[in-house]
Amino acid sequence: MPSISEVKKHDNANDCWVIVNNKIYDVTEFLPEHPGGQKIILKFAGKDCTKKFEQIHPPDTLDKYLAPEKYLGEVEQNSDEEDEGEEEEEEELDEEEKQRLELIERKPPLSQIYNLNDFEYVASKVMEKQAWAYYSSGCDDEITLRENHFAYQRIFFKPRVLRNVTNIDFSTEILGFKSSVPFYVTATALGKLGHPDGEKCLTRACFKENVIQMVPTLSSCSFQEIVDERNKEKDQTQFFQLYVNSDRKITQKIVENCEKNNIKALFITVDAPQLGRREKDMRSKYTLDASNIQNDVEEDEGIDRSQGAARAISSFIDTGLNWEDIKWFKKITKLPIILKGIQCVDDALLAIEYGVEGIVLSNHGGRQLEFARSSIEVLADLMPILKQKKLDKKIEIFIDGGVRRASDILKAIALGAKGVGIGRPFLYAMSAYGDDGVVKAMRILKDELTMNMRLLGVNTVGELNENYLDLLNLHNRFSSGDQLFQQVYEPLKLPAFKPKL
Amino acid sequence: MPSISEVKKHDNANDCWVIVNNKIYDVTEFLPEHPGGQKIILKFAGKDCTKKFEQIHPPDTLDKYLAPEKYLGEVEQNSDEEDEGEEEEEEELDEEEKQRLELIERKPPLSQIYNLNDFEYVASKVMEKQAWAYYSSGCDDEITLRENHFAYQRIFFKPRVLRNVTNIDFSTEILGFKSSVPFYVTATALGKLGHPDGEKCLTRACFKENVIQMVPTLSSCSFQEIVDERNKEKDQTQFFQLYVNSDRKITQKIVENCEKNNIKALFITVDAPQLGRREKDMRSKYTLDASNIQNDVEEDEGIDRSQGAARAISSFIDTGLNWEDIKWFKKITKLPIILKGIQCVDDALLAIEYGVEGIVLSNHGGRQLEFARSSIEVLADLMPILKQKKLDKKIEIFIDGGVRRASDILKAIALGAKGVGIGRPFLYAMSAYGDDGVVKAMRILKDELTMNMRLLGVNTVGELNENYLDLLNLHNRFSSGDQLFQQVYEPLKLPAFKPKL
Amino acid sequence: MPSISEVKKHDNANDCWVIVNNKIYDVTEFLPEHPGGQKIILKFAGKDCTKKFEQIHPPDTLDKYLAPEKYLGEVEQNSDEEDEGEEEEEEELDEEEKQRLELIERKPPLSQIYNLNDFEYVASKVMEKQAWAYYSSGCDDEITLRENHFAYQRIFFKPRVLRNVTNIDFSTEILGFKSSVPFYVTATALGKLGHPDGEKCLTRACFKENVIQMVPTLSSCSFQEIVDERNKEKDQTQFFQLYVNSDRKITQKIVENCEKNNIKALFITVDAPQLGRREKDMRSKYTLDASNIQNDVEEDEGIDRSQGAARAISSFIDTGLNWEDIKWFKKITKLPIILKGIQCVDDALLAIEYGVEGIVLSNHGGRQLEFARSSIEVLADLMPILKQKKLDKKIEIFIDGGVRRASDILKAIALGAKGVGIGRPFLYAMSAYGDDGVVKAMRILKDELTMNMRLLGVNTVGELNENYLDLLNLHNRFSSGDQLFQQVYEPLKLPAFKPKL
Amino acid sequence: MPSISEVKKHDNANDCWVIVNNKIYDVTEFLPEHPGGQKIILKFAGKDCTKKFEQIHPPDTLDKYLAPEKYLGEVEQNSDEEDEGEEEEEEELDEEEKQRLELIERKPPLSQIYNLNDFEYVASKVMEKQAWAYYSSGCDDEITLRENHFAYQRIFFKPRVLRNVTNIDFSTEILGFKSSVPFYVTATALGKLGHPDGEKCLTRACFKENVIQMVPTLSSCSFQEIVDERNKEKDQTQFFQLYVNSDRKITQKIVENCEKNNIKALFITVDAPQLGRREKDMRSKYTLDASNIQNDVEEDEGIDRSQGAARAISSFIDTGLNWEDIKWFKKITKLPIILKGIQCVDDALLAIEYGVEGIVLSNHGGRQLEFARSSIEVLADLMPILKQKKLDKKIEIFIDGGVRRASDILKAIALGAKGVGIGRPFLYAMSAYGDDGVVKAMRILKDELTMNMRLLGVNTVGELNENYLDLLNLHNRFSSGDQLFQQVYEPLKLPAFKPKL
Repeated sequence: MPSISEVKKHDNANDCWVIVNNKIYDVTEFLPEHPGGQKIILKFAGKDCTKKFEQIHPPDTLDKYLAPEKYLGEVEQNSDEEDEGEEEEEEELDEEEKQRLELIERKPPLSQIYNLNDFEYVASKVMEKQAWAYYSSGCDDEITLRENHFAYQRIFFKPRVLRNVTNIDFSTEILGFKSSVPFYVTATALGKLGHPDGEKCLTRACFKENVIQMVPTLSSCSFQEIVDERNKEKDQTQFFQLYVNSDRKITQKIVENCEKNNIKALFITVDAPQLGRREKDMRSKYTLDASNIQNDVEEDEGIDRSQGAARAISSFIDTGLNWEDIKWFKKITKLPIILKGIQCVDDALLAIEYGVEGIVLSNHGGRQLEFARSSIEVLADLMPILKQKKLDKKIEIFIDGGVRRASDILKAIALGAKGVGIGRPFLYAMSAYGDDGVVKAMRILKDELTMNMRLLGVNTVGELNENYLDLLNLHNRFSSGDQLFQQVYEPLKLPAFKPKL
Repeated sequence: MPSISEVKKHDNANDCWVIVNNKIYDVTEFLPEHPGGQKIILKFAGKDCTKKFEQIHPPDTLDKYLAPEKYLGEVEQNSDEEDEGEEEEEEELDEEEKQRLELIERKPPLSQIYNLNDFEYVASKVMEKQAWAYYSSGCDDEITLRENHFAYQRIFFKPRVLRNVTNIDFSTEILGFKSSVPFYVTATALGKLGHPDGEKCLTRACFKENVIQMVPTLSSCSFQEIVDERNKEKDQTQFFQLYVNSDRKITQKIVENCEKNNIKALFITVDAPQLGRREKDMRSKYTLDASNIQNDVEEDEGIDRSQGAARAISSFIDTGLNWEDIKWFKKITKLPIILKGIQCVDDALLAIEYGVEGIVLSNHGGRQLEFARSSIEVLADLMPILKQKKLDKKIEIFIDGGVRRASDILKAIALGAKGVGIGRPFLYAMSAYGDDGVVKAMRILKDELTMNMRLLGVNTVGELNENYLDLLNLHNRFSSGDQLFQQVYEPLKLPAFKPKL
Repeated sequence: MPSISEVKKHDNANDCWVIVNNKIYDVTEFLPEHPGGQKIILKFAGKDCTKKFEQIHPPDTLDKYLAPEKYLGEVEQNSDEEDEGEEEEEEELDEEEKQRLELIERKPPLSQIYNLNDFEYVASKVMEKQAWAYYSSGCDDEITLRENHFAYQRIFFKPRVLRNVTNIDFSTEILGFKSSVPFYVTATALGKLGHPDGEKCLTRACFKENVIQMVPTLSSCSFQEIVDERNKEKDQTQFFQLYVNSDRKITQKIVENCEKNNIKALFITVDAPQLGRREKDMRSKYTLDASNIQNDVEEDEGIDRSQGAARAISSFIDTGLNWEDIKWFKKITKLPIILKGIQCVDDALLAIEYGVEGIVLSNHGGRQLEFARSSIEVLADLMPILKQKKLDKKIEIFIDGGVRRASDILKAIALGAKGVGIGRPFLYAMSAYGDDGVVKAMRILKDELTMNMRLLGVNTVGELNENYLDLLNLHNRFSSGDQLFQQVYEPLKLPAFKPKL
Repeated sequence: MPSISEVKKHDNANDCWVIVNNKIYDVTEFLPEHPGGQKIILKFAGKDCTKKFEQIHPPDTLDKYLAPEKYLGEVEQNSDEEDEGEEEEEEELDEEEKQRLELIERKPPLSQIYNLNDFEYVASKVMEKQAWAYYSSGCDDEITLRENHFAYQRIFFKPRVLRNVTNIDFSTEILGFKSSVPFYVTATALGKLGHPDGEKCLTRACFKENVIQMVPTLSSCSFQEIVDERNKEKDQTQFFQLYVNSDRKITQKIVENCEKNNIKALFITVDAPQLGRREKDMRSKYTLDASNIQNDVEEDEGIDRSQGAARAISSFIDTGLNWEDIKWFKKITKLPIILKGIQCVDDALLAIEYGVEGIVLSNHGGRQLEFARSSIEVLADLMPILKQKKLDKKIEIFIDGGVRRASDILKAIALGAKGVGIGRPFLYAMSAYGDDGVVKAMRILKDELTMNMRLLGVNTVGELNENYLDLLNLHNRFSSGDQLFQQVYEPLKLPAFKPKL
């Protein structure tokens, strides 16, 4: 049981201990694996980081992801010393942060939020800079990130008139579960970056608006917290998004836990054998800590270490995951299995062959492979082939990425999607306005659904089909996007020269 | 007969009385229905709003649209109190308004107006901010609004030379009625927002230039005022645009009144079962009243109320209007019936089947369904099919939206349109320069028609056909528009943060 | 013989006399016809305008274009009075003009001019504002003006390598006349706006560089001056561009004069039955004279007068010119006849039928019909049809508009053009640097021709054909142009509000 | 043996001697041939330029490229005088240069470089202005320069999922020589402009990362220095890029020297019978020396001299090089011959016919023929034809130009390229950070290769094929490029007006 002063000695990148909830961990080898970057951990090297840690992570994180031998025992209590770590963490607010806090006070009232872009704008101003960067960034040049949205704008409508549209009903069933809307809250990581209640905000809003939530593997709240937040009386539907661990026992335990907790479907992520490079996020994180310039040389030698990081992460998310594993999953669980991250027609056909219940056409929100096509383009390619092969009823097809308006949703439905996953917009709504924000975001979409369906001349989502769409320009990638999206979008930056001395 | 002090007690959103022309009305339930927003009414809650009211509305508005029981009787006269309402309304001019009034003084002379964009520019500077926002806004991201115009610019000409073009005649017949030009003034709401004489300006200019006017249901002047403004001696042609009321008796009365007043054709709006969300307009209205910040929470709870608004409006414009109603119309009137707002080929074919005299290909100036295609694209799709089916002579086809140049008109005519509706440009001309502006706008178009027809090598509009057009790029929606249009176009805004205290 | 004081009384738009070279003219009816606008004449109403007049016009202009009765006799000499007119004309230099004169001093040396855009840039800075506006403007929104240039940039090359390209020969024959280059100086009006020597600069440069010049009808120098400027010993080739006058006798006299002066070919303009509206030019002229604001009302009543202008101009350029006239031309002259301004395939076929020697595919530099296609697009449509009909040898095809690089020329030649007309670039070179500028411009093109032909792998222009081109994108009008062109291009302006008092 | 004072007399453009390493040369006739412009030489006219000369050129340059009679003998030593030339060269640092030197101090640490664009950005700030201009410029309007990059962005991926991608192997063989990567360092001129060690930096980095280097004819280091820099123990592979001299004996000597020095393949440049005009580079050089304004007139007469320059350069690079010469090469050497600069399908077929071992589809980095297509477009055209003719195995196809990301490389490989040449990015990395920079650049590409291959679902480059690509938009040249590229790209400038006095 090492003392605080013992812990203090392990205060650098080559030998890094931290204290979380009085437990001491050696995280030296984990440093390059940390999704939030090693810098933030190094700040607490040799110190207690409980407070900061719990702002973002579920309590069981370290025990789950670190090898048992990395746990070094409980700390030898000493109240004088203990406070130190936390104290040092209280930094002076820089000018930027002061401005942010002031903007929080001056947030536009919710009544002024007319669409999902508005939430994004407010979030970009009131969120912590790094949190914003983590949520908003995509891989490489963010071409796919933006394409996801632009592609919808290349589809136009062919509306019908003179139909009785007094009654509009956009409710649907997703994998057999009732939903008030043809969209669901898709899985996104680290909810507490946006709001102290993290994913629980989404759970509560989903209940209020009767929307299905997909619980993420990389949530900030623990899985248990999120499922416990469900409404006790009504059977609120939740799905689970799964990153498959190289250690299949861990994965199996997670799946069993899902079943035990009445999760209704398992969405297995298949597009992330390695995490994409999100340069905007990386740039954002660096700038923050740019004060310690003397580290440069050391960092520059870090090239190999970063290669190591890639390898390290592979040990968490399984680079070996393949179709044979799908058979294994079908053996270990009765839950419906949906493959999240299908990106071409051939894999969609394989998915049907392997007997899964559904697929999500997704490029991971433009965070994985740059130049992956927008899902809506893939959907437009896929459906005619499925129909021709009479396979279109064999499977439920979902789609996510780039959705900002109900018109986007209706286009996807008309093309054959059963439901549309929406992620970032709800995170932004939550980050800016908490539960109320998420509820409002959902109601905005519902209002838009009503209006759009009336003006399209359809009463239910089931009536929608390709005849309502003009797809002529879908594959011509020249759209430069709507104004609000462009105004909110934060361009990539080149590296900063060091400040003048 | 309540006293003024009695009226004063009903001064809030939950209990709102107003006085118009000494008559007291309970408008509490009407608040969310008000096209101009409830804020402007709430300013006069418990007060006399006659002056402001008459600036915009026909005198009979309230008696027509409110249920009879909402009329609470005449006010008990008391001159001392009476003035109060109006006085309070006299606000301090803010900086923006002062600048606007000064710009009115400095308007460019009419001789400096060379094209319809110029009018729009002047109007954008000299109109009241909210009025400008109401006229200029479209739905959602205003993609369709702009597409309407851009689409014309993707059509090029194949002009013919060495033809005697000394005599140019662009007169035509519209539904059998002579017109000096192949365009007409289409229906637009709330003319008094732009000019105290409202729609009567347009009536007078139409007479001077021998142009047909379509009288709108939602005019600011009363229907009677507008028809009475017609030239008494010559038989000035007017059409009527009809929003069909859920209460068919009201609608029938309107139609009978049209016949009695020698209206020549009935344009039934079919693209507006629900009014589109015009966010630019909403944003503009809010900013105006942003002073009372303490209302925020209350407003934020207003989500349901705004849903109510959608429902409320549906009770005025009939969401149930459908093809069967067209049969009813044909029974109750001998007026030619034209369906305004057809947006796809199939509905055009249905219209012919139901025996109407004409259709207007229109997306309501980009104010209803976002991602509706431009009418000129629909026309280019429709005409070859009609010709193939030998239906092209069965019906007159009109088109509106986005027209700014005579070249736009000639493109539509060459594609098979009988006439082109122009709305906003004449409103802008009227708002900036009154009658003279509208006359000048029409003459500019006539000058352009002459020049363009000469340079195309045609003497009459009847000679125009598809051979004069290069349509290769019509469906490639990459045009970013001409410079003047882009300069005049006011981008959408994100919500404003509250001012620093 | 009226006295100066008599003349002085006729000093307004309704009664306007001017003195040119001691001769008095009543120009009241001509005012709206004046291509340079009536304002500039009204400045001299009742005065002597000889000096200003001769800066721009050939001496015989008034006698040629005014009816004989408008000449009122010689002025009664009175030296005191006489100076007055000229004196008053000496205005204070405004800030803008001072800056321009200073920029003339600071012109980049000719050695710094690398391409034709550079000339345009310098000209835009050192030319008088109105003169620049007259040269640079196009009709309406200047879409066709820019398309002319952009279209070339949508054609790419398929170059050949490993060919002996030591000897490059880009000389050719144009209508049987030798030319050192496959381009010629096309006709442009009012050369003295750019340089005091006007079209004579071009004549001299053409001789030096062995380039053919097309003499314009609307030259600033008189026809005789221009033909006399030719090199006496060598037989310098000149063509003539003809605007056909409604009075065919005038036209016949011009043609006879061409023959007498050894003009080698007659280019009849067929795309200008009415002059296009060049709003940039109009705007530029107005701003200049905006000082007299009190005229506004009067001007605003001027609507009909401007309509009159359109009619008036039609009386000079014949709106009735048609194919039958071509027969007449063939009777009255043995000169080769070329139709300048053909804009579609059908008219090219008609031209062959009527037996002319050549056609110029041209939209008049984007100054006539807006949305006319670029000539290079028309050429790409035309040639395959001519080849299929075996008509491609029947006629020589020229092309003009938008050419700025030798690569543009080679693209046109490869598509089947015999020669390329270049207008504005030489005017800009002349305006900025006089004769030296024009010579340099021609040498730049020659250098570029050498380099481009070497890199394309061809030794003579005769070897070029469609196989050297990638035309896939020619008809996709999404190009936004090269940077220099965009930097030099001056955007259109909206009307100016009057200045604050 | 002339004295220094004798040399001094030959100090102008018409009579120019310089001293290099105590040897006197008459460079008068060479002046217009100098790739770096004559200005820089004229600065040293009549003086010793050894120091500046050696910064850029291999020691044997003058003896190699000047005719023997231009060497005038050794200088008569006189230490007093000798220093003068060098002294005068020490100029005052201008403001811009001071800022540059300061920026060098403040360079972002290497750890902040995330991609190749980042290197380019840093290089653009820390390189000498002229050096940057020489490296970064392309011909004419730099349309092809940018197209090279944009074209890649019009290709999207169709990634496969659920494949075991634990082991990624991107090693390959290039012309039978092992390479750790499917790219090589292509030949670029004048390496010392970026770094004092010039091409040797690249040699060292290539060894560290097991990448093949192509040694350029126009290197700054001598050929011998570069080959001697290779790792002595391991057989480091180098290729040689050859500009064919009109004097074939010189060429033959170079080839023999290659064989003697164990060069593995000969890349003969076939796209440069004449050097393209790089106006950005020219503009950059002029501005530098703009102080001597009195030279203007003289320069303006220099038109013919510049024509002479074109001719002069032709005497160095052979304008007559053609297919017959390829036969000669095959006779004089057993080295594999690869033609660098093939730009169309027909020439690729000819290359196979002439029996070469490979071709590089290249437009010389956008530095030669403007409007040459991007190589990736040519590749996409070529491969289906080769496959159809069963010629795709007959030859190795390489490609260069515009590559900035591993995704670009993978697209080329999937289309059928064997390897991808990368030039400028490594120059920028070297210029900004020396050896470390180049190594880092290569590692970044390797990281990206790993990630992209994982996310594409391939383990080796051999698995890649067209099925992984969406080529629908490849030929639609509307892309405007990614943000970083656009931010780094320096727009062309118009000529500068002279400064105010």
